Amino acid sequence: MKYSQYFIPTQKNFPSDAEIISHKLMIRSGMIKQASSGIYSWLPLGLKVLKKIENIVREEQNKAGAIELLMPTIQSSDLWVQSGRYEDYGKEMLRFKDRSEREMLYGPTNEELITNIFQSYISSYKDLPKNLYHIQWKFRDELRPRFGIMRGREFLMKDNYSFDLDESLAKKSYNNMFSAYIKTFLRMGLTPITLRAETGPIGGSLSHEFQILANTGESTLYYDQELEKINPETINPEKLQTYYAAVDDQHDQNKCPIPKENLKISKGIEVGHIFYFGTKYSEKLNALIQNKDGKKFPVHMGSYGIGVSRLVGAIIEAYHDEKGIKWPLSVAPFTLSIINLMTDDKLCSEKSEFYYNKFIENNIDVLFDDRNCSIGKKLSDNELIGIPFQVIIGKRDLNEGVVEIKDRLNNLTERISADNVVDYILKKIKI
Amino acid sequence: MKYSQYFIPTQKNFPSDAEIISHKLMIRSGMIKQASSGIYSWLPLGLKVLKKIENIVREEQNKAGAIELLMPTIQSSDLWVQSGRYEDYGKEMLRFKDRSEREMLYGPTNEELITNIFQSYISSYKDLPKNLYHIQWKFRDELRPRFGIMRGREFLMKDNYSFDLDESLAKKSYNNMFSAYIKTFLRMGLTPITLRAETGPIGGSLSHEFQILANTGESTLYYDQELEKINPETINPEKLQTYYAAVDDQHDQNKCPIPKENLKISKGIEVGHIFYFGTKYSEKLNALIQNKDGKKFPVHMGSYGIGVSRLVGAIIEAYHDEKGIKWPLSVAPFTLSIINLMTDDKLCSEKSEFYYNKFIENNIDVLFDDRNCSIGKKLSDNELIGIPFQVIIGKRDLNEGVVEIKDRLNNLTERISADNVVDYILKKIKI
Repeated sequence: MKYSQYFIPTQKNFPSDAEIISHKLMIRSGMIKQASSGIYSWLPLGLKVLKKIENIVREEQNKAGAIELLMPTIQSSDLWVQSGRYEDYGKEMLRFKDRSEREMLYGPTNEELITNIFQSYISSYKDLPKNLYHIQWKFRDELRPRFGIMRGREFLMKDNYSFDLDESLAKKSYNNMFSAYIKTFLRMGLTPITLRAETGPIGGSLSHEFQILANTGESTLYYDQELEKINPETINPEKLQTYYAAVDDQHDQNKCPIPKENLKISKGIEVGHIFYFGTKYSEKLNALIQNKDGKKFPVHMGSYGIGVSRLVGAIIEAYHDEKGIKWPLSVAPFTLSIINLMTDDKLCSEKSEFYYNKFIENNIDVLFDDRNCSIGKKLSDNELIGIPFQVIIGKRDLNEGVVEIKDRLNNLTERISADNVVDYILKKIKI
Repeated sequence: MKYSQYFIPTQKNFPSDAEIISHKLMIRSGMIKQASSGIYSWLPLGLKVLKKIENIVREEQNKAGAIELLMPTIQSSDLWVQSGRYEDYGKEMLRFKDRSEREMLYGPTNEELITNIFQSYISSYKDLPKNLYHIQWKFRDELRPRFGIMRGREFLMKDNYSFDLDESLAKKSYNNMFSAYIKTFLRMGLTPITLRAETGPIGGSLSHEFQILANTGESTLYYDQELEKINPETINPEKLQTYYAAVDDQHDQNKCPIPKENLKISKGIEVGHIFYFGTKYSEKLNALIQNKDGKKFPVHMGSYGIGVSRLVGAIIEAYHDEKGIKWPLSVAPFTLSIINLMTDDKLCSEKSEFYYNKFIENNIDVLFDDRNCSIGKKLSDNELIGIPFQVIIGKRDLNEGVVEIKDRLNNLTERISADNVVDYILKKIKI
């Protein structure tokens, strides 16, 4: 993609209500634009990151055996009345009447609708287990939306729902999702810390929260250092669930069950939450399963959520410096940018164009900064938007037969023979 | 994907309000489930087709130079008041107040919001032309939703917006989209017929409608037979726009400008609509562009819509028989299904499993019907869901060293040496 033909409206300033660094950087790097309070348009760069994150979530769900479908954003109130949650949910649920005076709502979650879908088609133990998910926009009418897309009103979420014959099988499904979540966050370059959690309005008896570490995070976490050392190949969810972890207001130094030298304290951001709630919804919505003996029982359910749009902000909180964002490769909007410092120099332009075409041939998603603007603006924009690698084409360098390559993650630069640039990058990104 | 572990709830019956064949077949093949009036959940098979269609639309938009972003579903009424359309739009616009009593709406289209985004960042002729699109759910509060997802209330649409310095450049953008639309529909196996159209509430002076041919279509089209012979490599939009085409109530046999032998009459379904409306929105929303001489003018705009979810129904209307759907390869939920007729036979099961793994190795999206159910149900379900190729594994065939392969599009079957099955299919789908 040529920068001059693309649409990355970087900004020097940010709105005064942008309190946290991810909100500031998303505005400044032209990733989002506020449409109305707590509601954002995702500009091209922001949307690319959102899609990358969505896709990692999707791939890990599929690998874990979950099946994708898509429920609508607008629901009728009927099932919510039946489950008893229509009254329970407060003003955060956006409610309205359609033109025929039917009570409708913008779904904040989907336990009711998915239970209804399940019970419409599945009634035999032979069809279990089932794990159904979707990735869909939700609405939560926050009184005071803040932190940009981190606590917005319209947000993208992956939610799934497991259906099992009994509690012990349901806990297997729960642990399967527990592992899938850890793999998902690790793939994004994040360090997930798992905490036992309250079940809140979803209900149930077992729940875990997934926080990721970031110095600028909202919560303070106290946890066993073992939780930082997870190997995605050998995750043991049951063992992980035994390690100590607590947020600020639940941690009591005097009652902490682990030795001080094992305790770590870091800031975290919540990005996922999972629940086992047994038959809470299946009883009320009549989702019954016939077992081998022909007897009918309410199906055992769990639900599992990842804040897909929230992760965009969370990753920025974990990966940035004073100059801008430093995207991990797996979620970066582009793999690399080619920065032509001298667009009016024939050699610089030809060489830049040559690399651009070579990278495209190799299926690398490359941003070519061909803009006719000052070197200063070019370099600072590229620092700000945080593409993992910068290939910087300057006249003096080219005359010496070299090109500068910058690794944005560690801010190290190397000067590489101009002939080796493509191979060097391909090796770096392991293709 | 193994059928037994997937979720395709095929049905014998369909609701009494399902009047058209695509609605009946989508319910019967377990692609969708009604959530409330005119609002549907997309079950796994339906979602897969929807995503395939969405992706073709996206690829052709990108090829045509349009840039993807994503506007939210919920908008504030402010910009609509400014453009004058808040009053104009009738009850089909879903309106409501949020918890802070602000007037909000579920976007039925996005001329206002995109113009606002554009004018926030772009003010120089140097940044033109720009063409911005998104693929997003819309809501249209139809009084009597019908025809399943073909005239539902919540629907997925691709809409884009072009921005140019003057009318003649804007018409270039218009013609560029005209060509992209034809390529898009041709890739889905459809025959698009283009008609000059009314501009309606969008406004403007130039508009075309894209209908696709289907025997069960809603409109009757009268058109020059040349329109059926478009070559995607050599589309000439200006020439195409000169050919005669009219819907039923606009066609007058006595005034028809082309010879009778060139006139074709077919049924069609509208799947796209494009508009050039000049400065209608840019004037009201203050989207001004500075030209080379430093003078400011309102930017010239066009808007372009494709009914992404509607296309799922339209393709079924064009491709079905009395047994079910016949998906064109480019939008099929799976490329082929392996049907094991005898799941309790060791040889049949081993051979089926062998093919299944081979196809997966070759990156073919394959559905493996491993269900333990009657041969009759297996065959009829597979006809119904309409996967392009069926690889049918039977015991008697295997003993003779052959396998039956059915091409669902023309319903022809061939018996192929069991050793050649994978190569035969790979050749058929040209990988």
